[in-house]
Amino acid sequence: MSGYVSLPKRLLVGRPLSSEQMGETLLPKWLALPVFCSDPLSSNAYATEEILLVLSVGGLALLHLTPWVAAAVVVLLVTVVVSYRQTCHAYPSGGGAYAVSRANLGQRAALVAAAALLIDYVLTVAVSIAAGVSNLVSAFPGLSPYAVEISIGLVAVLTLANLRGVKESGRAFAVPTYGFVVAVFSMLAIGVARTLTGHAPVAESAAFTIDPGTDALVGLALAAVVLRSFASGCTALTGVEAVSNGVPSFRRPKAGNAAATLAIMAGLTVTMFVGLTFLALASGVHVAEDVSHLVGAPEGYTQRTVIAQVAGAVFGLNTPGFYAVQVFTTLVLVLAANTAYNGFPILASILGQDGFLPRQLSRRGDRLVFSNGIIILSAAAAGLLAAFDASPTRLIQLYILGVFVSFTLSQAGMVRHWTRALREDPDTPRHALHRARAINGFGAVLTTVVLVIVLVSKFSHGAYLVVLAMPVLYLTMRLISRHYARVDAEVTPTPDGVPLPSRVHAVVLVSRLTTPALRALSYARASRPSTLTALTIRTSPEATQRLVDEWEARGVPVPLTLVDSPFRDITRPAVDYIAEFRRQGPRDVVAVYIPEYVVEHWWEQLLHNQSALRLKARLLFQPGVMVISVPWRFGHDAPPTAPARAATSAGGPRVTGLPRRTTARRGVEGADDTVTTVGVRR
Amino acid sequence: MSGYVSLPKRLLVGRPLSSEQMGETLLPKWLALPVFCSDPLSSNAYATEEILLVLSVGGLALLHLTPWVAAAVVVLLVTVVVSYRQTCHAYPSGGGAYAVSRANLGQRAALVAAAALLIDYVLTVAVSIAAGVSNLVSAFPGLSPYAVEISIGLVAVLTLANLRGVKESGRAFAVPTYGFVVAVFSMLAIGVARTLTGHAPVAESAAFTIDPGTDALVGLALAAVVLRSFASGCTALTGVEAVSNGVPSFRRPKAGNAAATLAIMAGLTVTMFVGLTFLALASGVHVAEDVSHLVGAPEGYTQRTVIAQVAGAVFGLNTPGFYAVQVFTTLVLVLAANTAYNGFPILASILGQDGFLPRQLSRRGDRLVFSNGIIILSAAAAGLLAAFDASPTRLIQLYILGVFVSFTLSQAGMVRHWTRALREDPDTPRHALHRARAINGFGAVLTTVVLVIVLVSKFSHGAYLVVLAMPVLYLTMRLISRHYARVDAEVTPTPDGVPLPSRVHAVVLVSRLTTPALRALSYARASRPSTLTALTIRTSPEATQRLVDEWEARGVPVPLTLVDSPFRDITRPAVDYIAEFRRQGPRDVVAVYIPEYVVEHWWEQLLHNQSALRLKARLLFQPGVMVISVPWRFGHDAPPTAPARAATSAGGPRVTGLPRRTTARRGVEGADDTVTTVGVRR
Repeated sequence: MSGYVSLPKRLLVGRPLSSEQMGETLLPKWLALPVFCSDPLSSNAYATEEILLVLSVGGLALLHLTPWVAAAVVVLLVTVVVSYRQTCHAYPSGGGAYAVSRANLGQRAALVAAAALLIDYVLTVAVSIAAGVSNLVSAFPGLSPYAVEISIGLVAVLTLANLRGVKESGRAFAVPTYGFVVAVFSMLAIGVARTLTGHAPVAESAAFTIDPGTDALVGLALAAVVLRSFASGCTALTGVEAVSNGVPSFRRPKAGNAAATLAIMAGLTVTMFVGLTFLALASGVHVAEDVSHLVGAPEGYTQRTVIAQVAGAVFGLNTPGFYAVQVFTTLVLVLAANTAYNGFPILASILGQDGFLPRQLSRRGDRLVFSNGIIILSAAAAGLLAAFDASPTRLIQLYILGVFVSFTLSQAGMVRHWTRALREDPDTPRHALHRARAINGFGAVLTTVVLVIVLVSKFSHGAYLVVLAMPVLYLTMRLISRHYARVDAEVTPTPDGVPLPSRVHAVVLVSRLTTPALRALSYARASRPSTLTALTIRTSPEATQRLVDEWEARGVPVPLTLVDSPFRDITRPAVDYIAEFRRQGPRDVVAVYIPEYVVEHWWEQLLHNQSALRLKARLLFQPGVMVISVPWRFGHDAPPTAPARAATSAGGPRVTGLPRRTTARRGVEGADDTVTTVGVRR
Repeated sequence: MSGYVSLPKRLLVGRPLSSEQMGETLLPKWLALPVFCSDPLSSNAYATEEILLVLSVGGLALLHLTPWVAAAVVVLLVTVVVSYRQTCHAYPSGGGAYAVSRANLGQRAALVAAAALLIDYVLTVAVSIAAGVSNLVSAFPGLSPYAVEISIGLVAVLTLANLRGVKESGRAFAVPTYGFVVAVFSMLAIGVARTLTGHAPVAESAAFTIDPGTDALVGLALAAVVLRSFASGCTALTGVEAVSNGVPSFRRPKAGNAAATLAIMAGLTVTMFVGLTFLALASGVHVAEDVSHLVGAPEGYTQRTVIAQVAGAVFGLNTPGFYAVQVFTTLVLVLAANTAYNGFPILASILGQDGFLPRQLSRRGDRLVFSNGIIILSAAAAGLLAAFDASPTRLIQLYILGVFVSFTLSQAGMVRHWTRALREDPDTPRHALHRARAINGFGAVLTTVVLVIVLVSKFSHGAYLVVLAMPVLYLTMRLISRHYARVDAEVTPTPDGVPLPSRVHAVVLVSRLTTPALRALSYARASRPSTLTALTIRTSPEATQRLVDEWEARGVPVPLTLVDSPFRDITRPAVDYIAEFRRQGPRDVVAVYIPEYVVEHWWEQLLHNQSALRLKARLLFQPGVMVISVPWRFGHDAPPTAPARAATSAGGPRVTGLPRRTTARRGVEGADDTVTTVGVRR
């Protein structure tokens, strides 16, 4: 391999893996949890904060609604997880929204789900990285000017880790996930214990009040804020999809292990979310989207994340406990971004196989991962981070719209699935199927309601971008699919096959009498064409005359055809000349031989005329033409040295350009025999 | 032509000109003057100003030296023009510094001159356009925020005008040049008459004084300022070279007409320069590089160019006369930039012919001009304008260094020329040759002295950039020349010619059994190779098995070879397989047929795997391989429709993939006959 892949790639990505090593990359549950569940786990780092930020639009007055909003999120989360456990069992080969929709709702619904998921995977990376960096900055405020650079650097690290392969990343990522769980649970235990014993921790922002900005919210405006706060809290649900998508990566029994992992994840997430929300309220954390609305904050106050403020209140700012929570929070958010690296490339590869995305996406790279998908995901996420200054609050406005589109389609698909099972599967108990359908039906209704809430409450805050992007992606995939279908129809051979060409006319392009040109002639002769001509385009009379003189002096045994080009263009006269063969014999084929200089450095390419290459590209559009590159590699294809030359000139099978040999076609009498002139004027 | 060149190009550049129309583009004197002499004429727009700006470093105290500096410039100008008139006669085929140095001083000196000239042509465009725009802004101050944009727009206009061809530009440019001459001479006549009658015009800045900034200048510092002022005034000499370079563009007698044009130009330039300097002093124009040094100027005073101030004093500001002078000054400066468009492409084409620059530069475009040179000149000048904010004062610091390098080399070459003539040409009177040599000798000494003055006095003000760029360009040209020499040596055919290959092995790359693949097979068969094999790389066992099944079902009469690629790479196994042919028969040639999809839209290209193209590029580096593209044009190469198919299936010469035909090679008994497997593991 070493000759063809560069050392840097090997150092970064690792040695290539053989296709037979595929089985080795399956994951046990304890590794699957960090790989697939860091996204929902890590969303605790911002879900509570987003609820508080939206409610603080109404000043302190609305904060008492926080528990109710949080409770609604928990109900939703449990519903979705229960629904998805059923999906894992029903679709052990990977029950993503795309597969479920395709099986039950048809290809169009499946494509909508796919478009939604692809966009949300990109946003998962962008939001998680942005949130991770904002937690890092909460611990180390000196880094805040470099937030965008750090974010993009982290995307690069994730890219490389995933190009190396899923198993190694699973191992490398286990420690921070479990570290995050332990750190947060420790914080919750201490904080709750202190609160219950009457010594509730006090957040650094507890003394501030929040300027509502507008008058007190009543009626519809109040409802809108509460709904938007709920919609923001729903970020806690992102990533549930990943487990059911990734069932094939689990060890056997794949479906059972995946469902169990989902349940563990749900238990951990709900506990952390409830605990963090409780402690944030108990310690009096006050945050605002616009820091200037914090009344009582000192000059130059920079707002830390909610989890950082809670950790600071429980452990004290800048204590080891505080740093532990912040560092693990940052790391688990980076892993959450990694969840998308497991989902996006697999989904893209399925779409590639089905012909909705470029087929290259369905090929595994030399580390057995879908390298192209990984690279596209990274590029898109890095672009978003750069465009939105790595601000989690701005990026989160685009988020979860896609998640809920795919949730809804997936649940609706499952309802259809169970309905069909009721009809076609007499072996399963009726009540089990009815129960399963009821669960997914409830999930479908609930997620539809939430989708509408999210759409309405976030639309003007940035979600409209996603509303625009989804149909564009959908239509692109439809167009790609149509292209592939058209191509497949066109290239499928008919029973009759393909006719052999009647005759092959060889045309060798010559501009100067050089060894590469002579070699192209000799290769052309070796293919025994029906006719053989050397073609030169006369753009400069002097240069062409020199060629004709040398041609005759050497007695090259191939007729030389001159075509005039009064406008000094090479392509047009050559194409016209070549097309004439086809006009005279529609079943003939023209083989155009182009002596091509192969240089070692790009700058050398600039020194050689590109008109032959332009002609070559143009000829590919001509019917019945094949284009033959006869490469001449500088420094490698040099003629043999003197002794070898002496040996071969004794009488080897060398023909072209031999001055001593006189063939029947050689024009000894005059130019007219060897040189044919075709052209507008002479 | 219409099928191959786009309509926008034709609208902008005009219809193509035949090579025979070349003679039509020769110039009479009255057209040659605007084409070749607008540069020295227009330099009056800034030469006086540059002298005044430098002297004003010493406050008002040094302005009385202006006439002496101006006189030195006039002496230099006359000397150089007289010298160059001799060059026109001695080198009627184009006596640029490059040609003269090459003929008399050798190739290295000629290359130094060429490097200097190329750089100065670029600076001519940049400085002239910048000065033109600053005169435009002097008349219409509202345009000043857009100076850079206007400058680059003017470069674009010049580019198009020159791509259309020299004659049309000559005509279009005659009016402004003569307009400029008339406007300035009118202004001089009125201004001088008023001064002599005791009513001298008064410039808007006459009442200001100039803060010297430093203490009064004495001794060396004074000398340095005076010399720098002289060096800046020498900008009046730029462009003299253009006439002698352009002798071949003159009507017959070429040399005589060129020399006459030079003399006319010198007369006009000297009169204008002396007149303008006189009026600037008489009307009390006070300018400073830093406007804040102008004591007495009102708040927000923006300094107009010297010619604008003189015109304002003579005609009154914002009068028709004032606008006429400013508009014609701007236009003639744009024409000065155009001078470089006559010089640079011709010099670049000579250097291209001689193999010191890429050979493409020596080819005429379809309007008979050297299009590539025009485009490079424009790009470089636009880059300089953008980098230096279109400031004439900053750009002028880089200017004339190259001019004087080439002046000096050219004069020195002429001295050698006359010395040789004294030895070898007995027909010409001795005294004429001696006189000619004396003139050029005096010119050489004088320009050498000025070169040193310019170098020393401008070095730290920006000329160091040119001092760096010249050797870089020089070395680049030497490297290019070495490359071409090496290539020419390598490709020059030996007397023995090129051997015919012993055998041709045809390898057709197949990934799926499609019509394009079958057609590639049929083309390969038509070339009657010694061996023929269809090669497929097994990256996915399922896909390959499908291919094998279809191959057998159809009974394709060509053996199919499978090569395993456990690492899913196409290129490496294919190259290894192909290289094996050469290892077994070093005089054999391998013809690799690649079925290639030709799509109409670039985005469709993204949808088809590029691994075949990568392989193709890789194969060009293999010895003894020719690469054959068999294009399949979507939508055009579709199989014939039903009736045609019925007709041909009756028994035409169709072979490949015909299921009904059973050839000796077809494996009816089993796969082993048709399918060869080569590879690491199966």
